[in-house]
Amino acid sequence: MYNVIVESSAADFIGLDLGGTFLKAARVAADGTVGRKLRQPVESDSADGLLSQLARAVHLLEEDGPAPAVGLGIPGIVEPVTGVAHGVPNLPSLEGVPLAAELASRCGRPSFAANDANAAALAEAWLGAGQGFGNMLYVSLGTGVGAGLVLDGRLFTGHAGYAGEIGHIQVAPDGVPCGCGSWGCVETIAGAPGWVRRAEEAMLGRVSALSGQRLEPEVIVQAAHGGDAAALEVVDGAARALGAGIAATLNLLNVERVVMGGGVSAAGAILLDRVIAETRLRTFPAVFAGCSFRSSALGADAGVVGAARVAMLARA
Amino acid sequence: MYNVIVESSAADFIGLDLGGTFLKAARVAADGTVGRKLRQPVESDSADGLLSQLARAVHLLEEDGPAPAVGLGIPGIVEPVTGVAHGVPNLPSLEGVPLAAELASRCGRPSFAANDANAAALAEAWLGAGQGFGNMLYVSLGTGVGAGLVLDGRLFTGHAGYAGEIGHIQVAPDGVPCGCGSWGCVETIAGAPGWVRRAEEAMLGRVSALSGQRLEPEVIVQAAHGGDAAALEVVDGAARALGAGIAATLNLLNVERVVMGGGVSAAGAILLDRVIAETRLRTFPAVFAGCSFRSSALGADAGVVGAARVAMLARA
Repeated sequence: MYNVIVESSAADFIGLDLGGTFLKAARVAADGTVGRKLRQPVESDSADGLLSQLARAVHLLEEDGPAPAVGLGIPGIVEPVTGVAHGVPNLPSLEGVPLAAELASRCGRPSFAANDANAAALAEAWLGAGQGFGNMLYVSLGTGVGAGLVLDGRLFTGHAGYAGEIGHIQVAPDGVPCGCGSWGCVETIAGAPGWVRRAEEAMLGRVSALSGQRLEPEVIVQAAHGGDAAALEVVDGAARALGAGIAATLNLLNVERVVMGGGVSAAGAILLDRVIAETRLRTFPAVFAGCSFRSSALGADAGVVGAARVAMLARA
Repeated sequence: MYNVIVESSAADFIGLDLGGTFLKAARVAADGTVGRKLRQPVESDSADGLLSQLARAVHLLEEDGPAPAVGLGIPGIVEPVTGVAHGVPNLPSLEGVPLAAELASRCGRPSFAANDANAAALAEAWLGAGQGFGNMLYVSLGTGVGAGLVLDGRLFTGHAGYAGEIGHIQVAPDGVPCGCGSWGCVETIAGAPGWVRRAEEAMLGRVSALSGQRLEPEVIVQAAHGGDAAALEVVDGAARALGAGIAATLNLLNVERVVMGGGVSAAGAILLDRVIAETRLRTFPAVFAGCSFRSSALGADAGVVGAARVAMLARA
């Protein structure tokens, strides 16, 4: 049926990780080995243009042999049954688009879509820092704060695909408004814009190593590592918000493993250590004792590996 | 095999609902019909005495015919695999006791144990206000605040049985210490002692219908219904804490149905309406829109029906 060129590649699935700025894509073997990879700027604002780019990426990766199926991760919600996308602020043209069906018709392969944090959670549970844990929380720290949940060994997406909105748990009842319509959400403090806002506040009337720097979380964590008081204050605030959100999750779900992923989580142990300490303060003691914390093991590959895994599981 | 006296009772399971003060027990048919019931004061402080009382209750209910299995709900944590009890503040002698095995050896029937809120959640999902919803949160409002989760159609207990500790989600970062070691937990405000404390505060220097009354949640809700300002303040505070905890759960789990049970929830619509309003303020809009709220349909029977259901599912 397939024109097999390399024996091992006949079973390679294709994983697509579509972000607001870049598309990453890779061939992923049944054992998780990552083969040929692509990384290209997102070329279009329109749904049609985006889907064409995705199909071209599949086509390119199929030069090494056809793939049995394609998985796609997006920075938004995917309805579990219909595969329709919702709430994709960075790629608004995808709102309401039945992504899996559209992609399948364009690339000629069975296609499956998922939220990007959910895909990354699956990848970490399969081969990364969540391996061997039936109940796992994956937290994605980037511009926003997202999460994926593996419960009783399976990805849990909730009724309509919205599960894992840890970034919108309210942790500061006296906090600032959030884009979601609520206020004091984890994301208002621990999302990238929250770091900037709080760094600006912390620097007021103070000498700080942050002066004149780009106020990105990574830069702030670095300054905190160097002992800068303003930066430490900002890191502490982010850790407190994340710790409160993770503690709420642990109290509710009694997961055994928390994996911290996303760009910001790579910034350094100073953040993770504080997140763990703040989580501990707010978690039922037996629940905290039964849980361990790790940084993502798959790093930037979690997205494509997870997307491919979505397709593998759907075809199993 | 069984000495069948009444045809329909041959398949009756026995459900035991052990509280801190009362033991409730009932025969429950395979279709959920509740047969003969018992309610008796808890007679012993010792694990041995409690287990003997449970076995006697089973024996009494088996006068109508033998039961294929027995389910037990307790106000504490039950380890999923071992059936060992933990964290049973009102019946501390049960700490570390392998309840299911001990009960089975005393009553001669296969026996299964579960947390009481989990059992009630199963009952409501099976026959009550959660019927037909694959993803459901059951909140038990009583002396404490507990919860049970049905996710993807199955009871979710977490790694070690602690899932559903909604009462220990921190909702008031400036709040009072909680028995769990944290502070500002939902339960410090919406648990019965929290109602008393806040009513005493609200009555200070104020004329209130609560003066001279027993400060139980039901009494306070009644006074709020009559327009008493102090009582309304207390109800609002409880609703805010519960709403924040439920909102955190909805954002994380995208459940379709919330069922409010336990003695306090029966106090009146004035509380439930406010809980819903406070939840809405803090929940991702699409998630709130996809969720509906109901009061428990099984009321005081939820415990025994759920305990019997635990046994049925374990034997299925």
